[in-house]
Amino acid sequence: MIRLSVPHDLAPGAGLDLDRGQSHYLAAVMRLVVGDEVAVFNGRDGEWRATVAVVGKRAVRLTALSRTRPQASGPDLDLIVALVKRARLETIVEKAAELGARRVRPAITERTNADHTRVDRLRAIATEAAEQTGRLDVPQIAEPMKLAALLADWEPGRRLLFCDESGDAPPMLRAGLAEGPWAILIGPEGGFSPTERETLRALPYATPAGLGPRILRADTAAISALTLWQAAVGDWR
Amino acid sequence: MIRLSVPHDLAPGAGLDLDRGQSHYLAAVMRLVVGDEVAVFNGRDGEWRATVAVVGKRAVRLTALSRTRPQASGPDLDLIVALVKRARLETIVEKAAELGARRVRPAITERTNADHTRVDRLRAIATEAAEQTGRLDVPQIAEPMKLAALLADWEPGRRLLFCDESGDAPPMLRAGLAEGPWAILIGPEGGFSPTERETLRALPYATPAGLGPRILRADTAAISALTLWQAAVGDWR
Repeated sequence: MIRLSVPHDLAPGAGLDLDRGQSHYLAAVMRLVVGDEVAVFNGRDGEWRATVAVVGKRAVRLTALSRTRPQASGPDLDLIVALVKRARLETIVEKAAELGARRVRPAITERTNADHTRVDRLRAIATEAAEQTGRLDVPQIAEPMKLAALLADWEPGRRLLFCDESGDAPPMLRAGLAEGPWAILIGPEGGFSPTERETLRALPYATPAGLGPRILRADTAAISALTLWQAAVGDWR
Repeated sequence: MIRLSVPHDLAPGAGLDLDRGQSHYLAAVMRLVVGDEVAVFNGRDGEWRATVAVVGKRAVRLTALSRTRPQASGPDLDLIVALVKRARLETIVEKAAELGARRVRPAITERTNADHTRVDRLRAIATEAAEQTGRLDVPQIAEPMKLAALLADWEPGRRLLFCDESGDAPPMLRAGLAEGPWAILIGPEGGFSPTERETLRALPYATPAGLGPRILRADTAAISALTLWQAAVGDWR
């Protein structure tokens, strides 16, 4: 069944007038007709089944909502990722949604040679991936920030899993992870600078961890780290 | 340092006449000059440092080889993956190389709607990824085979880790993996058919394992499964 992330409040009597993009998708691309069913979620009210009541090319209306799943969200996990090339950053956002991250925070590091990204496009990718993967919320995509600024304003109580390619960090499954709010940090393809590595290693809330003996692309490192975290202390157990 | 996978035998006295593609890459793209150094490997003789001796646009010659690493290869791990859309299959091959698979075997399953792929292109992707990731061999890319034929000709002693999206398989880290030769099997985006699942579950050499509560794209499933296998019984420990 088609799943849509919608902004509307969801309740038994609600009628949902979808925006042009979603209306076009249902009417023109998927060719739904009156009476067809879709699933909707808004990140607050769980998942609901809804019925197509009106089909116009630019205006589809859903009614007859009934709740099929209560609201739930995955563990409290952020992914902080250095700005990398567009295609790989988009892959990372798609995979972060599939692998249950709550938030993706693009970061500008010393060896990052970009300082902006199309955040609106990343949000669209996160939404589509959340719809496909079956989760009940869409990961937030933050505006890019300098890594130093991000660390200077660190949320108390959140631990930082710092993927360290230097080779002397313990493997992630031996790094002593414990349950709680975490952020995974993935550096740029050129790695962290020695100063950044020293800063990161000295943070009281940071845990360095390694990802095997080979050099990984940033997207691979992000996916592998999210996977191991979910398997060790997240919702894959 | 630039790393190249070459077919030549590597020994102290060898002179390597590179093919047109690699010559063009070194001369025209990377603009190397006589005296520059590159690293070469052939999957048999370890990694060697070599010096550019002659630079022509279509013919670069390397000499003065000295060995920098003895031959080594990762654990004996195959990835069997249903043919999926070109871009995702190419991602899977790139990541299989980074994550240390020895061989990628494209498979045709009941719900696969393709029966061929550009194997030569996948081999080029595997080679480039092996060069970048620092391994000393290039993963083999097999010709696509029907899953049934592949199972009918199964290599004795190799175990099969079957990624089962049905929801009742144990998480991979709890599936009781043990060291030895393995193959990871990733199904198509439409999943395995009920008959295929029954066949797979009945195989004496198969272990079903789950990959968390969300629906994963085939490329995500492949990367996550390779990661967990390496962390549990491979060379990420």
